[in-house]
Amino acid sequence: MNKFKIFNDPLYGFITIPDGIIFDLIEHKYFQRLRRISQTGLTQYVYPGCTHSRFLHALGCLNLMQKAVQTLRLKNVEISPEEEQAVYIAILLHDIGHGPFSHTLERTIVKDVSHEQISLQLMHYLNAETGGRLNLAIEIFTGKYPRYFLNELIASQLDIDRLDYLKRDSFFSGVAEGNINSDRIISMLNVHENRLVIDEKGIYSVEKFLISRMFMYWQVYMHKTSLAAEIYLTQAFRRAQELAQNGEKLPATPALEYFLSRQKKDDFDFNDINAFVDLDDNDILFALKQWQNQEDEILSILAKSIIQRKLPKAEIYNQEIPKEEIEKRVQLCEKLLGAGSSSYFVHDTEMSVTPYNKESHPILLLNKKKQCMDIAESPKQILTQPLYLKTVKHHFCSWNQEKLLRLKKK
Amino acid sequence: MNKFKIFNDPLYGFITIPDGIIFDLIEHKYFQRLRRISQTGLTQYVYPGCTHSRFLHALGCLNLMQKAVQTLRLKNVEISPEEEQAVYIAILLHDIGHGPFSHTLERTIVKDVSHEQISLQLMHYLNAETGGRLNLAIEIFTGKYPRYFLNELIASQLDIDRLDYLKRDSFFSGVAEGNINSDRIISMLNVHENRLVIDEKGIYSVEKFLISRMFMYWQVYMHKTSLAAEIYLTQAFRRAQELAQNGEKLPATPALEYFLSRQKKDDFDFNDINAFVDLDDNDILFALKQWQNQEDEILSILAKSIIQRKLPKAEIYNQEIPKEEIEKRVQLCEKLLGAGSSSYFVHDTEMSVTPYNKESHPILLLNKKKQCMDIAESPKQILTQPLYLKTVKHHFCSWNQEKLLRLKKK
Amino acid sequence: MNKFKIFNDPLYGFITIPDGIIFDLIEHKYFQRLRRISQTGLTQYVYPGCTHSRFLHALGCLNLMQKAVQTLRLKNVEISPEEEQAVYIAILLHDIGHGPFSHTLERTIVKDVSHEQISLQLMHYLNAETGGRLNLAIEIFTGKYPRYFLNELIASQLDIDRLDYLKRDSFFSGVAEGNINSDRIISMLNVHENRLVIDEKGIYSVEKFLISRMFMYWQVYMHKTSLAAEIYLTQAFRRAQELAQNGEKLPATPALEYFLSRQKKDDFDFNDINAFVDLDDNDILFALKQWQNQEDEILSILAKSIIQRKLPKAEIYNQEIPKEEIEKRVQLCEKLLGAGSSSYFVHDTEMSVTPYNKESHPILLLNKKKQCMDIAESPKQILTQPLYLKTVKHHFCSWNQEKLLRLKKK
Amino acid sequence: MNKFKIFNDPLYGFITIPDGIIFDLIEHKYFQRLRRISQTGLTQYVYPGCTHSRFLHALGCLNLMQKAVQTLRLKNVEISPEEEQAVYIAILLHDIGHGPFSHTLERTIVKDVSHEQISLQLMHYLNAETGGRLNLAIEIFTGKYPRYFLNELIASQLDIDRLDYLKRDSFFSGVAEGNINSDRIISMLNVHENRLVIDEKGIYSVEKFLISRMFMYWQVYMHKTSLAAEIYLTQAFRRAQELAQNGEKLPATPALEYFLSRQKKDDFDFNDINAFVDLDDNDILFALKQWQNQEDEILSILAKSIIQRKLPKAEIYNQEIPKEEIEKRVQLCEKLLGAGSSSYFVHDTEMSVTPYNKESHPILLLNKKKQCMDIAESPKQILTQPLYLKTVKHHFCSWNQEKLLRLKKK
Repeated sequence: MNKFKIFNDPLYGFITIPDGIIFDLIEHKYFQRLRRISQTGLTQYVYPGCTHSRFLHALGCLNLMQKAVQTLRLKNVEISPEEEQAVYIAILLHDIGHGPFSHTLERTIVKDVSHEQISLQLMHYLNAETGGRLNLAIEIFTGKYPRYFLNELIASQLDIDRLDYLKRDSFFSGVAEGNINSDRIISMLNVHENRLVIDEKGIYSVEKFLISRMFMYWQVYMHKTSLAAEIYLTQAFRRAQELAQNGEKLPATPALEYFLSRQKKDDFDFNDINAFVDLDDNDILFALKQWQNQEDEILSILAKSIIQRKLPKAEIYNQEIPKEEIEKRVQLCEKLLGAGSSSYFVHDTEMSVTPYNKESHPILLLNKKKQCMDIAESPKQILTQPLYLKTVKHHFCSWNQEKLLRLKKK
Repeated sequence: MNKFKIFNDPLYGFITIPDGIIFDLIEHKYFQRLRRISQTGLTQYVYPGCTHSRFLHALGCLNLMQKAVQTLRLKNVEISPEEEQAVYIAILLHDIGHGPFSHTLERTIVKDVSHEQISLQLMHYLNAETGGRLNLAIEIFTGKYPRYFLNELIASQLDIDRLDYLKRDSFFSGVAEGNINSDRIISMLNVHENRLVIDEKGIYSVEKFLISRMFMYWQVYMHKTSLAAEIYLTQAFRRAQELAQNGEKLPATPALEYFLSRQKKDDFDFNDINAFVDLDDNDILFALKQWQNQEDEILSILAKSIIQRKLPKAEIYNQEIPKEEIEKRVQLCEKLLGAGSSSYFVHDTEMSVTPYNKESHPILLLNKKKQCMDIAESPKQILTQPLYLKTVKHHFCSWNQEKLLRLKKK
Repeated sequence: MNKFKIFNDPLYGFITIPDGIIFDLIEHKYFQRLRRISQTGLTQYVYPGCTHSRFLHALGCLNLMQKAVQTLRLKNVEISPEEEQAVYIAILLHDIGHGPFSHTLERTIVKDVSHEQISLQLMHYLNAETGGRLNLAIEIFTGKYPRYFLNELIASQLDIDRLDYLKRDSFFSGVAEGNINSDRIISMLNVHENRLVIDEKGIYSVEKFLISRMFMYWQVYMHKTSLAAEIYLTQAFRRAQELAQNGEKLPATPALEYFLSRQKKDDFDFNDINAFVDLDDNDILFALKQWQNQEDEILSILAKSIIQRKLPKAEIYNQEIPKEEIEKRVQLCEKLLGAGSSSYFVHDTEMSVTPYNKESHPILLLNKKKQCMDIAESPKQILTQPLYLKTVKHHFCSWNQEKLLRLKKK
Repeated sequence: MNKFKIFNDPLYGFITIPDGIIFDLIEHKYFQRLRRISQTGLTQYVYPGCTHSRFLHALGCLNLMQKAVQTLRLKNVEISPEEEQAVYIAILLHDIGHGPFSHTLERTIVKDVSHEQISLQLMHYLNAETGGRLNLAIEIFTGKYPRYFLNELIASQLDIDRLDYLKRDSFFSGVAEGNINSDRIISMLNVHENRLVIDEKGIYSVEKFLISRMFMYWQVYMHKTSLAAEIYLTQAFRRAQELAQNGEKLPATPALEYFLSRQKKDDFDFNDINAFVDLDDNDILFALKQWQNQEDEILSILAKSIIQRKLPKAEIYNQEIPKEEIEKRVQLCEKLLGAGSSSYFVHDTEMSVTPYNKESHPILLLNKKKQCMDIAESPKQILTQPLYLKTVKHHFCSWNQEKLLRLKKK
């Protein structure tokens, strides 16, 4: 049977699926489930174009990885057919452990198990199902394979994951400042002494990448309003979990119910995974829609706030929020909604971004004389040096009285 | 309170929301609900980028309408501030009556009431809520306002709706052949004797628009696989409705349950509307996910087929499907799944497209001498003439035995 | 010495020059001269962005050819390193025989020798200079090499030349209707029984290519005004040649003077070639600028008309121009400028376009069963069938009296 | 007569020419001459797409100015029809005083008169020709008109000129890092207390603009190779002028000859202007082509170096070039080409860029409370602060012996 298949991608045009095992992995219901998980969660409340799925991001990564392999081979880096397939599998599945609205779930009902761990666990299941055909992919993914640059293609400061998601999130959000030239950066990839490096010629594309990342952080990933929405979603799940663990019966799909009432553990067993792969954005949104009418006032307000997009006032400051300002809001909240309520509704959060981390996996430039240098040390760099510095800002969100009362009575 | 607001759109960049009433309509939960309704339904099974919502399409239409009003005024077409606001409201709300997966629902659980009727009904409710501020918008929407070109901006062969959705669906699908230059077409709009016309200079942009529409029909809207998915979704709801009306209790949200068990009527009353505005894609997907485990084999197979994307074999032919071929498939199906089952699983469908309909709302060109002419009659036209002709094709979908058995046992 | 080099191209981004001989050919003054020859001649009088050079088009072709070779190899078409280099050389040099404003010169001072012949002759000189390193390229270029598909990459209805120039001219003119997806078409190239074919999946990209070509012909290549400019340029050179051959001394660079006074022959000898490679757009424009002040009234008016862009009135008709209309214009002209003058100033020209020529080099689709079919016969084609038909139009240009008198006295 | 006209621009699509006087100015031979003057001179030796003309840049500026006026009016900034027309004329003509390869000519044969002065002088001539219709435009251009923000649209750190040329040069060069979102920046323009300001919402578009400008400087405007070409062109004209002023007769068009032999003065009289408006790129290239065969060895080598693109070795350093290194090159040169020759062939040049100049015309942000603030002081700025700093680099170019000998003998 001919399994050759082409996907259309708004960013890259045709994406060609190379062969049997990769096609089968895409068809697998673990992977199909990513169609129903949004890549950027509640960001679509601010950037309504951001409805793209993790499914599409994973295919996009596969496509960029194909270009990377092609480029490296043209530069005489030997990559065997087995390594090629393995690196495709590893990038395709690198995010398969993401649940719906991951950042939120990972802080509440799926606490203490990272999505990377779940990805790895799912890879092991798929490996078992396919009779060990993912062995090499797993070695590369976990950094145990001696050809280290293959791992760096999957996880480093200039990895395929970032090259796709920055470009993709910029594209779907319409935030043009975040657009990067992934193709051009990939055409500059090279390998030197088993490390992934960039041909010096590509220095400005890399600098633009670092700057774009900075823009995306402050304009999209840490947008004050989508952050506020995410915080309230986290609180809704915290509250629902508390209620469920006190024996209250809340509307929820079986998979969600499983996690609401599950006791905290340090790892995932087979039952956990089995429930986990049934979860997607619909489980969460279904629950929130029903919880709007829940008797518990805190849960009901949180659910309405998200579903009807009645979000609290949020702002970002360069300085810490004065304690008195927070205290004022806390008291207002508790007066209206009762003691203890402010821990759900009033939040200040420190946010920090370091566009370029010199310490871990520095980006290395390779010049024509085959010498390597950290991009931050290059005499040609224009803008990298200020990009070391960590920027710290402070996010504060809380209701104003009028809005809150409107939600209460609805 | 300052209600001025800007949305980022991947297609058009910044979209500015002009003033109070329009901002309030967007904030309304009837409209926010469009965030959870996909513009192109199951098309994302074939074009995974097609996850854009009806919310975004409506904002895009608003933006193009703003440009149209600006263009017409620059050409000395008088449009009063009241007309301007009304035409913005009308285009913003023109699709507000769409439910989830409309084409499917309109054939099953919401039969006999078109989405246009529901849009109008919702406009009337919103009009009542806002003390009559939508009166003029409703007049324009229903074609009763004497300045007829304003209605043509909302519903004609070159209306703002098409100018947005063709461009948008082409953009998100990645089908470059469907891309049109909406801006350029809008810059060519004009009014002549109360009719919306196109400056002759824009003839090739219009021809490209007609051709692109043709490409979008055959590559996207009538893609064999997404059509098959849509047919199966229709059948799933037909089956669920039959079961529900026989008293069977199926997992469903309250709103969905309401429609599954509702008796067929010719119009929508207040209760119907109230349930309808609670429906969105999540209600449908929630139900399908649960129905996978339903005892009824037909419903279960249909649900699994959609959720796990195990779709039947589908093909498009230029000729009618031979009766014997259909009969063979019908018998195979009934042998495996019982008498009557083939009406759920075997389907042949005639499809036809007429890229340009000369009869209703012909596209009129205005030359420098202020004379009007149907584009199809213009001596400058290059490709319009073949675009009169209706193209008819035939779609056929049905399971092959092997795939069906695999779904049965899962 | 490291000869690796990268060009930036506004269309394709980085173009990498692969190796020694190709780099040397680009450095050669025969090729550098293409920097000073505009790809689309006087078209920039209508589309002011069209200032791109033949140099850039040749590099673009090289780039697309690299992608074509890569694609075909990925589809297991064997192409040896020698063939690869030869096909790069052949496409790089396929237009090297173009002079400035070729269409014009080929009708006047370089009559009876086509640019293809001159290209071949220059390839032979370069072959001699490089000790025979162009032998295989010349075999492929002339269609003598048995692997026929390599020649089809250079000259056929879907060759690399067209894939670049259509896209490039559309890009620089800003005529969006002419944009094609060269990358996508190239990714669909294949070889079947020694013929260049297109994977059936690419059918709509090819149809869009054919339609875009049609748009480019009527909007750009045969634009009434740039055609008029070209006709007058032709007449200017016809007049100058007549004067020169009557012994008159006109301002001209040595190379241009050589051709103005050269007697008509059927081929090019060494002296001809030597003068030819010194000609570029500057020689022509220098001469026209000086000829504005020439005593000969006809030459002076023609030169002013071009340099100052005071062009005659031009129109395109679907029918033949009535004889009486032409006669009227002829008489007006001769009254004002003397007997015989109308042959310089009044012109009617038949123009015809056949977007798809079924007879020579039909475009062949290859389906999954490895069967080939003319695109026009494919059941999937949507728009190709009307594209067989030849469209004929008629161009007419002539002065109106007022404009002519203004130019006379200036 | 209907003078309404549309140009196609590859960047902006249709550009509409608004009315009589502006159309007439475009038709004027002073302005048509800009068609034959390249915007970026010899930059096309490095970026072969950079063949765009000053004519197109001027039209592009007109188009952006139309958008700016539209935007400001929508924000209730009153601009009278007279002011509108004047600001269109001023931006259209702001560069009309540019000669061919301006930077070069302004250092040699047109020394001591800036292109701004010539622009103004030409505006005065055109004003006289049109009976004073440019009075207001000239007032705005010279900063004498009290509504100061109109002048800032033409000359400031975020003026229309920069918004067009950065975007345009990035587009034609293919240097994607330099792309800016002119439309978005213009949509953020506003006026506050008679100053041109930016709505705070646009801060990141402005930061991206400043960064892009930095990238364009180092990648394009100060590219080592095009700088070397420009230096040699300057030297060629310096040499030719010396020879001409010593009575030597060089091939040159009348206009060029006029300037070669003209004695240095502090201003331009009528004769100067008359010759100046006949000069364009063709005059320069014609001369260089002929000078290749000139007896004077220095002139001949410089001319060949440019026409055949045999450029000296050039490099950019972060530190000053060591004196000994320069001395070595000087001696080598003088040994080969005689005493004094090194002043033509060996050059070190300091280059500096300050992406954002806080002192003159700071970029002001306007927040929602109608308060103004220098962008560099804004708490929201991410990257502006490092952009104060002046970057200084050093350019050095000189022949290597081998290349020089090859050019000598050719």
